[in-house]
Amino acid sequence: MKQTDTICAVSTPPGVGGIAVVRLSGSRSQEIAQHLLRSLSGKPVRLTDHKACHAQLFDGDAFVDDVVALFFAAPRSFTGDDVVELSCHGSVYVQQRVLMVLCREGARLAEPGEFTMRAFMNGKLNLSQAEAVADLIDSRTEVAHQLAVSQLRGGYAAELEVLRQQFIDMAALLELELDFTEEDLEFASRQNIRDMVAGLRAKVQGLVDSFAMGNALKHGIPVAIIGAPNVGKSSLLNALLNDDRAIVSSVAGTTRDTIEETMTIGGILFRFIDTAGLHESSDDVEQQGIQRSLKAAEMAKVIILVVDASRPDKDAPLFSSDAKSHNNLLNDKIVVTVYNKSDLVNADIAGGLMVSAKEGRGIQELRSKVLREVESRLPEGDGVMLTNVRHLEAMHHVLEALGEVDKGLDAGVTPDLLTVDIRDALYHLGTITGKITSEEVLTSIFSRFCIGK
Amino acid sequence: MKQTDTICAVSTPPGVGGIAVVRLSGSRSQEIAQHLLRSLSGKPVRLTDHKACHAQLFDGDAFVDDVVALFFAAPRSFTGDDVVELSCHGSVYVQQRVLMVLCREGARLAEPGEFTMRAFMNGKLNLSQAEAVADLIDSRTEVAHQLAVSQLRGGYAAELEVLRQQFIDMAALLELELDFTEEDLEFASRQNIRDMVAGLRAKVQGLVDSFAMGNALKHGIPVAIIGAPNVGKSSLLNALLNDDRAIVSSVAGTTRDTIEETMTIGGILFRFIDTAGLHESSDDVEQQGIQRSLKAAEMAKVIILVVDASRPDKDAPLFSSDAKSHNNLLNDKIVVTVYNKSDLVNADIAGGLMVSAKEGRGIQELRSKVLREVESRLPEGDGVMLTNVRHLEAMHHVLEALGEVDKGLDAGVTPDLLTVDIRDALYHLGTITGKITSEEVLTSIFSRFCIGK
Repeated sequence: MKQTDTICAVSTPPGVGGIAVVRLSGSRSQEIAQHLLRSLSGKPVRLTDHKACHAQLFDGDAFVDDVVALFFAAPRSFTGDDVVELSCHGSVYVQQRVLMVLCREGARLAEPGEFTMRAFMNGKLNLSQAEAVADLIDSRTEVAHQLAVSQLRGGYAAELEVLRQQFIDMAALLELELDFTEEDLEFASRQNIRDMVAGLRAKVQGLVDSFAMGNALKHGIPVAIIGAPNVGKSSLLNALLNDDRAIVSSVAGTTRDTIEETMTIGGILFRFIDTAGLHESSDDVEQQGIQRSLKAAEMAKVIILVVDASRPDKDAPLFSSDAKSHNNLLNDKIVVTVYNKSDLVNADIAGGLMVSAKEGRGIQELRSKVLREVESRLPEGDGVMLTNVRHLEAMHHVLEALGEVDKGLDAGVTPDLLTVDIRDALYHLGTITGKITSEEVLTSIFSRFCIGK
Repeated sequence: MKQTDTICAVSTPPGVGGIAVVRLSGSRSQEIAQHLLRSLSGKPVRLTDHKACHAQLFDGDAFVDDVVALFFAAPRSFTGDDVVELSCHGSVYVQQRVLMVLCREGARLAEPGEFTMRAFMNGKLNLSQAEAVADLIDSRTEVAHQLAVSQLRGGYAAELEVLRQQFIDMAALLELELDFTEEDLEFASRQNIRDMVAGLRAKVQGLVDSFAMGNALKHGIPVAIIGAPNVGKSSLLNALLNDDRAIVSSVAGTTRDTIEETMTIGGILFRFIDTAGLHESSDDVEQQGIQRSLKAAEMAKVIILVVDASRPDKDAPLFSSDAKSHNNLLNDKIVVTVYNKSDLVNADIAGGLMVSAKEGRGIQELRSKVLREVESRLPEGDGVMLTNVRHLEAMHHVLEALGEVDKGLDAGVTPDLLTVDIRDALYHLGTITGKITSEEVLTSIFSRFCIGK
C-alpha cells in the first residue's frame, strides 16, 4: 500500500447535534487515533478492522470526550486508504477540539471533497460516480436522489462505456485501412462510416438534449407564472404553495420583482416563479418588471399562463401584440393555460382548466397536470440523462468532433485524418468517467464538495 | 431483557453533510435494520455486535442508499437497549427517507432526549449525568465543556453523595435516640446537632453561591460596558471584538439599544454588552436607553467602567448623582475601570488601565485583566459548581429544610420531628441525581435535549 498523508474533517453536517463523526483517512489514521484513545479502564486501545471500540479521547492528560472509534483497514474503506471514524458528542467545542488534537498529532484538515477524491484516486469510484456522491448529498427530492443514485451505481458510466466502445470500433475500422493504404482498400464503405457517425451523433445529441430536463430535475424545474396584470398570478402562487409568500393586492402591478418558491410534487422539485403582469407600459419601473418576467419565462421549463376567467378576451392581445418574440418564448416549453377567478363566472370555459386561487378550487388539479406533463417528458425506464454541466460540455466537444469527421468525409480525407477527430471525441468521452483527467479538472470538480466528504 | 419499543432519529446535526447517522434503539432494532439491509452482493445481512457492516438499504425493491450499519447489543450500548446506527449519505432526502422506512417497519420517531432518557432508565447514567450530556452538546467553550464533562464523569454526583451521607448520618443519630426516648437519652448533644446543621448549611450555601458563576460560565459571562455618553463605549466594544458590530459615531447618545456580542477568551465565553451612556436626560427615548443600561449592568458579572482619559473628572458625577442605587449596582461584581482615549493625553493616569479603542492600545491588557479577575473567582482544583437551575432549586429546598431543623432545635422539639425535616432535605438532594424522581420531572428534563440524543 502506498503511503498517503493523513487527512481529517468533520463528515457530519455542520452545527450542533447529538453526535458528530470526525473522519481520518491516510496511512497514519490508525496510529494517530490509537495514540489519543484509551479504554474505559485507562489502557491503550488497539483498533481492529471493522470493529467498533468505545473509548475515551485524551488531549495529553486532558479528557476530551467519550467516543466510539471505528477502523476500516485499507482497501476496505470508502477512500481505499486506512480510515478511522470517531463518533463524538456533537458540540461545536468537541468537534473543533478533536480536529485540533488530530492535527497536532500529524493529520491535516481535509480539503472539500478530498475523501471522495482519494476514493477516485484509489480506483474505488470512477469520476462520474465521484460526482454523483456530491449530487447525492445535495439531493432534496426523490427524483434528484434517483438521478444521483443511478449515476453512483455505475449504470450511467456503463451506458457511456457502450458509446465509447462504438467510437473505438469505428476508429479501429479506419485504422485497419491504414495498414493497407497501398492497396487502396476500404474495409468500411464511406457511406457506412457516415451512417455510424449519424447514429453516434443522434445518441450524443439525445444526451445533450436530456440535459435541460436532467439539470432541471436536479435543481428544481422552473415554472413561470405568466399573464396580464391583475389576473391573480400572485394569488395562484400562494394557493399552489399554501402560503402567503407573495404580497397580494387588487392593485394591478403589485409584483415588480420575480418571486420564487420551491415545492416538491410527486418527488420532483419545482421552482414556482411569480412574475409581473405582461402588458404595454410606459412606466419605466413597470417596464423593468415586465422584462424580468419575460426573462423568467425564457428560463422556465413550464409556463403557467394565467387568464382571467371573468374576462378571457382581455388577455388575448398579450401574446399577439409582439407575437413573434412571445411565441418564441413558448417554444419547447410545457405551457399550461389556466382560467383563474372561476368563482366569478357561471360556466366553465370549454377545455380550459378552471381554477380559483381565492377559493382553492382546481389547484390540486393544476399541480397534477404540471406533474403529468413533466413526467411525460422523462426518458422511460433506465434511460440515461445528463445532469452535470461538465459532462454536457464534454458532449458538446464530442458533437464538434463528429462534425469534423463529417467534414473530413465530405472532403474525402485519408482515414488517419478521420481517426484524429474520432480520437478527439474519445478523449472528451473519457474525461466524463475520468479515464482521462488532469489535476486542474479534478481540483475544480472536488472543490464543489462539502468538507468532510 | 425487558421489551422496549424501538425509537429512531437522526443523531447528527440537522442539515446537509457528507454523512448522517440514523440511530435506532429498542428491542426490534436489529430485526428492523436487517429487514431493510442487503449485502453488496444482494444477500440478507446478519448484524454482529460491535461490528461494522457495509450494506445497501432498500425500501422494498427501491435502493435507497449505501450505508455502514453498526449494531450494539444490549446492554453494551449508549442507551442500554439494542442499538443500531446507520451511517448514510447526509442529504436531506436520504435522512428523511431512511426515517420514513424505519417507521414503516415499526420503529417510531424518538422524542427529544429519549435516547438519553433510556440510558437513565436502564441505569447507564444517573440523572445529573444525563443532564450533563445536554450541557456537553451545548458547550461552545473549553470551560463550559469541562463543567459538563466533570458532571458527566460522575465527580459531581460523588460530591453530592458525600453531602447526602452527612445528612443520613445526622438523621441516623437522631433516630437512634427515638429508640431510647423513655430513657431521655441524647446520643448527640443538641449543640452537636446545631454544629452539624451549620456545617451542612455552609456547604449547601457554598454550592448555591457557586451557581451564579457556574451558570455564567456555561452560558457566557455578561460583561456590561458602562460609562457617560461619548466616552467611547461602542468603539471599545468593537476593539474588544476586532469587529465593527456597534455603530460608532461621535454624536453623544448614538447607542440606544443594548448591543451584545460574544467572544471566547482563555476558554471562557464572554458576552460583551454595549450600553447607552449614563447621564441625566429628560429625553424620553434616551431615558429608556439609560434604564436598559442600568438593567444590563445589574445582570452583568463584570462591569467595564469606561472613563474618558482626556476629561476624567467629567465622569465623576455619574456614580455620585444617585450614588446609592448605582453603588448597589456594583455590589458583588467585578468592576474594571478603563481610561479610554489614551491617544488624546500625554501622561497615563496613575494606577489606571489606559486604553485607546481607536488605536487598539491596551485592548489585549483589558481582555487579560477581565479574564484574570474571573478566573480568580473560580473554585480551585476539582471544586464543584452548580450550573443547573433545577439543581439550584433543589439546593434552595435543602437550605429551607435546614432552616426548619434550626427552628425545631430552638423550639426544643422531639428528635422525630427534627428527622422529618432532614428527610425532606435528603429528598431534595435525591432529586438531583435521580435517586428520587417523577415522570413529570423527567419529561421536563429531557425535553430540553435535541432530537436524536
